[in-house]
Amino acid sequence: MTRTTTQKRGSPVLNPQKFITQERLNSKLDIDQINTFLESNPTRQALTHSLVEQIIYDPVLKTDTDYYDQTKEQLRLNTAKKINRLSIYMEHDIKTAREQFRDQDLMKQLQTESSTVPPLTNKDISIFDKRLSLVANMDPQLGTRVGVHLGLFGNCIKGNGTDEQIKYWLQERGATLIKGIYGCFAMTELGHGSNVAQLQTRAVYDVKKDCFIIDTPDLTATKWWIGGAAHSATHTVVYARLIVNEKDYGVKTFVVPLRDTSTFQLLPGIAIGDIGSKMGRDGIDNGWIQFRNVVIPREFMLSRFTKVIPRPNGANPIVKTEPQLDAISGYSALLSGRVNMVMDSFRFGSKFATIGIRYAVGRQQFAPKKNAEETQLIDYPLHQYRVLPQLVIPYLVSPAAFKLMDNYYSTLDELYAVSSSGDKVKLAKVSSKLKNLFIDSASLKATNTWLIAQLIDELRQSCGGHGYSQYNAFGKGYDDWVVQCTWEGDNNILCLTSAKSILKKFVDSATMGKYDKELDSDSFGYLDPKYIMGIFSGSSKIELDKLSGYRDVWAISLVKLLGHIAKIVEKSRNIDGVSKLLVLVAKFHAIHYMLKTYYVKLSNPGESYVTDEATRDALWNAYKLFSIYFIDKHSGEFQQLEIFKPREISQLIQPKLMELLPLIRNDAIALTDAFKLPDAMINAPIGYYDGDIYHNYFNEVCKNNPTEKDGAGIPSYHGLLSSMLGRGFEFDARLGGAAAAETLAQLNK
Amino acid sequence: MTRTTTQKRGSPVLNPQKFITQERLNSKLDIDQINTFLESNPTRQALTHSLVEQIIYDPVLKTDTDYYDQTKEQLRLNTAKKINRLSIYMEHDIKTAREQFRDQDLMKQLQTESSTVPPLTNKDISIFDKRLSLVANMDPQLGTRVGVHLGLFGNCIKGNGTDEQIKYWLQERGATLIKGIYGCFAMTELGHGSNVAQLQTRAVYDVKKDCFIIDTPDLTATKWWIGGAAHSATHTVVYARLIVNEKDYGVKTFVVPLRDTSTFQLLPGIAIGDIGSKMGRDGIDNGWIQFRNVVIPREFMLSRFTKVIPRPNGANPIVKTEPQLDAISGYSALLSGRVNMVMDSFRFGSKFATIGIRYAVGRQQFAPKKNAEETQLIDYPLHQYRVLPQLVIPYLVSPAAFKLMDNYYSTLDELYAVSSSGDKVKLAKVSSKLKNLFIDSASLKATNTWLIAQLIDELRQSCGGHGYSQYNAFGKGYDDWVVQCTWEGDNNILCLTSAKSILKKFVDSATMGKYDKELDSDSFGYLDPKYIMGIFSGSSKIELDKLSGYRDVWAISLVKLLGHIAKIVEKSRNIDGVSKLLVLVAKFHAIHYMLKTYYVKLSNPGESYVTDEATRDALWNAYKLFSIYFIDKHSGEFQQLEIFKPREISQLIQPKLMELLPLIRNDAIALTDAFKLPDAMINAPIGYYDGDIYHNYFNEVCKNNPTEKDGAGIPSYHGLLSSMLGRGFEFDARLGGAAAAETLAQLNK
Repeated sequence: MTRTTTQKRGSPVLNPQKFITQERLNSKLDIDQINTFLESNPTRQALTHSLVEQIIYDPVLKTDTDYYDQTKEQLRLNTAKKINRLSIYMEHDIKTAREQFRDQDLMKQLQTESSTVPPLTNKDISIFDKRLSLVANMDPQLGTRVGVHLGLFGNCIKGNGTDEQIKYWLQERGATLIKGIYGCFAMTELGHGSNVAQLQTRAVYDVKKDCFIIDTPDLTATKWWIGGAAHSATHTVVYARLIVNEKDYGVKTFVVPLRDTSTFQLLPGIAIGDIGSKMGRDGIDNGWIQFRNVVIPREFMLSRFTKVIPRPNGANPIVKTEPQLDAISGYSALLSGRVNMVMDSFRFGSKFATIGIRYAVGRQQFAPKKNAEETQLIDYPLHQYRVLPQLVIPYLVSPAAFKLMDNYYSTLDELYAVSSSGDKVKLAKVSSKLKNLFIDSASLKATNTWLIAQLIDELRQSCGGHGYSQYNAFGKGYDDWVVQCTWEGDNNILCLTSAKSILKKFVDSATMGKYDKELDSDSFGYLDPKYIMGIFSGSSKIELDKLSGYRDVWAISLVKLLGHIAKIVEKSRNIDGVSKLLVLVAKFHAIHYMLKTYYVKLSNPGESYVTDEATRDALWNAYKLFSIYFIDKHSGEFQQLEIFKPREISQLIQPKLMELLPLIRNDAIALTDAFKLPDAMINAPIGYYDGDIYHNYFNEVCKNNPTEKDGAGIPSYHGLLSSMLGRGFEFDARLGGAAAAETLAQLNK
Repeated sequence: MTRTTTQKRGSPVLNPQKFITQERLNSKLDIDQINTFLESNPTRQALTHSLVEQIIYDPVLKTDTDYYDQTKEQLRLNTAKKINRLSIYMEHDIKTAREQFRDQDLMKQLQTESSTVPPLTNKDISIFDKRLSLVANMDPQLGTRVGVHLGLFGNCIKGNGTDEQIKYWLQERGATLIKGIYGCFAMTELGHGSNVAQLQTRAVYDVKKDCFIIDTPDLTATKWWIGGAAHSATHTVVYARLIVNEKDYGVKTFVVPLRDTSTFQLLPGIAIGDIGSKMGRDGIDNGWIQFRNVVIPREFMLSRFTKVIPRPNGANPIVKTEPQLDAISGYSALLSGRVNMVMDSFRFGSKFATIGIRYAVGRQQFAPKKNAEETQLIDYPLHQYRVLPQLVIPYLVSPAAFKLMDNYYSTLDELYAVSSSGDKVKLAKVSSKLKNLFIDSASLKATNTWLIAQLIDELRQSCGGHGYSQYNAFGKGYDDWVVQCTWEGDNNILCLTSAKSILKKFVDSATMGKYDKELDSDSFGYLDPKYIMGIFSGSSKIELDKLSGYRDVWAISLVKLLGHIAKIVEKSRNIDGVSKLLVLVAKFHAIHYMLKTYYVKLSNPGESYVTDEATRDALWNAYKLFSIYFIDKHSGEFQQLEIFKPREISQLIQPKLMELLPLIRNDAIALTDAFKLPDAMINAPIGYYDGDIYHNYFNEVCKNNPTEKDGAGIPSYHGLLSSMLGRGFEFDARLGGAAAAETLAQLNK
């Protein structure tokens, strides 16, 4: 499509790229340093950009605007093609991680039982994990379809299987290599989602056969929403009630084959159907599964923490469990997903912020006076309020996301090591760490997936009608995104669960001085008994003249909010009655976590890699805006808890907000460019780098909507329309005509 | 599909229909009376139900869950089929409105120039308008595709055409009958949306030809988003700059033919393309249009308020305008859309509230203790807080929607009458009324389209994963809905415009005692100088022990908020700086309008038709909850403006909120049933009347997703998957193999 550049007869010329280029040239910020800050460190930064390059130029993996026009069937097929392609990258990435491209058949060795090469570790697949996370930013459904296999199926086996089971299913059979078998994760049922403990699917141990019989007792026990089940998975892990000798041991996990791996035929007793259309992510083949007395060997039960040990002569077997770890591990498969969703929040947030900000800078509407040039949207205070806080959100999410991810890997490594050793003291310690990780990841997952849903929505609206075009990414982006608020732990449930744990810690600390400094000083520093006492005695002050004050105000609000809640619960003895407030606790905890992590990182040049002063100042402004924006958003609670007086909201907080916005506005293009997202990743013409909004957008629309077969603007069904328009007085004739006076008179005789 | 009813071996049985039926039986509310209240009065109620019956049983118009699986092409075709069908209903509905089914060829007469039957009026098409509004609740894109033709194209001609032009285009040519010609509305351009006055398309008067030349001077002047342009429209109204003798008279409206009405070929100089995929409503054929020196006769300019009068001998013509009415009328076409969107807010809100509430009553999750029956979602306080305020929102919208609609029709009738008479005094009066109507409709449109977007989102989330299934209506419902926040006046712009007018009224009243009681006492009663003085002198009290107090607290907050804003603007002299607060003014005005209208209606038995006391109490509870819920939501502002002290939020407002929720909870099923939406209109199996959530949902999923062609669970692309899983060590061989020690040694020589 050639560009339409005619500009005639002095008609006012809109030139968005002029503004964007000019602002880019005027900026003094060092966007390379900012990008290092956002990507955690130079090594990770380099890896990100190297992977992004490979992805956007890969002929199979690249995603174009035609993506927005694909039907469910096309999306399913294209996603499968991309999985196929990714499976080769997996081998490549493992070789890269092991630095082993020379002189060894690494894959063959890994898949050989007797081989002596070290078994696969999380580190070996860390490059691929990152690749998948980046691919997901362009094509979220692809991320999920592979993520279910590696992340849910794989992590369920890693978390609940014995060392031998892990090695067999994931390495020798090839699952980690996306080879041999393809897994899905049959947890959720039609009747039970959040309440995993009440799942109805049964795994009954048969003494004679030394097997389990997996069965779906009722319609509501149908496994539901199972990603990959409809068409891709050959195996699944099933969450089912372990029944031995009629005793119910609760929900455990079992590997169950579903399909012949070469013909893809369903195995006996397996009924599977397609769940069909969803709000988004139609490239995922979510399915339902019913089991009709499906037989699997006892050894297919994942037995790290629960073992069924047969006894001779048909005697009832022994069931051995390690209850503490069993409970934690049962859900550890979901932990990885939650941690990843915080990283997704950074990536998706930065993508949509880029689109919204570039449009706001390039788009003009309304002139201050007649014949003057129209004003850029970004120069309206209301528009600044709408879009700039959204721009800083991914900034604050990033350090928290990396920290959480690192914490997840180190804690899990510790758990694996300790659970093999059997050391009780160490076990208790790692289990406490894991519980804290649950709290942090749950509150950060819930808060950030909600924030990004709002960010996409707010920025879409800020682009007016053009935001509603599918080609500008917001529509599908929102539809694909919002499931993150529901799956792998419903946001409200996650908030309640984590807030209840925080409340318990608070009560222990405030009333009994119980506080584990070593364990809790990082995320839960605000629960130090001394700190709490300082707040309630009124000796802690809010100091917004200091940078740390923007963080501490949230610590103070958390303590006051928790105190408020504890008082109500003490009186009412009903924790459900304060659940609306508990959701706030989780949100405030997440906001505090993000501010704290960002503060630590940026305060420390060795961690931030930001040496340029103007750049550092801009990053501090982002930090301040984040804090002040959410104080203003929650000004109801801040006043109610008497953290700020009504007057202070009017005279301190809101003026500060209005002061910060123009500062960030000046850096808006630089802060956007600093995400370093190539156009191919943005995939929304109004947000491309060159800022030539109108040509880019017009050309993409034309490319995806060629002239109609029957002629330009003539739909295949034009006969339907022309016959409607050309009709005569048939209806009159049929009714009015037949009801003519003479006829009626005749009928009346 | 037969029902799966197996229930085996004492597995816990989930029985949602039991709860829903029981609650229905236990309710003492009179849902018929409530429905009359919601449908405005018994006559309108009867019409609604009669039309709904026809729509849901019509073989072409009915909409099933397969709707959620249709591709853009299928949606476009099916929408065209439905338009074709509706065109016959239009004739039927006009005959019904005229009560003329006997003895006259009414349509023929209407289309005959010399006929003596009275011309078509708004009343004649009021039944069809209601039919269209109800159809839109099932199939929003259909509503729009017809609405653009009748509402935008038609109203633009009605608002700007002379009596003869109106009669010719709409009646004789058949447009109102959906016949002869099909119209679209070419206002928005690629570069200009909200700023209509700066549109770039030009209509240059050619003295010699006595014609206009319509032209697109630049890419950004391309008409964009034009519903119906891509495939259906034969004609359009174009918003273009009137240029006569090189003088620019600003933007006026012109009728321009686009296509041959029988072949659908584009006419000379017309270039049209398809805008392609959108976030929702893909059944609308939005297109772009470029005009290349398209010639139309002078008489095609709509000339009620602006006339180009040629003079003999090639002299420059006279351009005669009535500036005041011209400006108002130019946008009056959008007024009808805004008024309709408030009605849509009621209808869509009630639909999604029905789904969310029935699911909340039928769904159980988590038991209070082991082996106890699991708790219904609706019994959790957090869930009550999430869903019950959403249930009462459509209750409060309904009376406001009907009042606004009535006001719109009466004001427009007055305008037509007065503008023909030319009476200057009356003209000024009706123009003031029209301005008030602009304020009310703008603030109600913006506030309610936002509220319903949130309602759909909140209720979808409250249904967990099942809310994400396309078959449960939320996904497409949201995607289709949210464009209402943007089109026919962007919500933020509408809020700013209406709030600025309110602020002006406030300043006039507060500083100069200027207040037109006759004109303003209805919507702007809170701007009475005495009332304002009472508030600032501190003599007005908030009395939440009285029903009127729930309304008045919003009047008080409006005055205080306006006072706060006026003070800031006085100091800063910059109205843009307070735009965030102005958006609040518009929202508060709308909330107050809704509470006030509801209060008047329910207080008056002759208007409410509610005679049963328990029923009336329940309706008052809905009113209270609406007010308190939004006070709590805006508790930041209520404290900041010192309407409530922080203590009062904790000890008065929030406890009242928690008191009201369980009351409404008891009536939840009755208040839902009272919308009287048949299953066919709900079109979401988890929300059907019988409450058999799981069977209904499972069966719809199975119906829409039959067994795959290649065998159950085997996708057509299974070869792609099985070859990936069955692959050997090709990658090793290709790279590792070639890089074997011997080869490398050889290459090293």
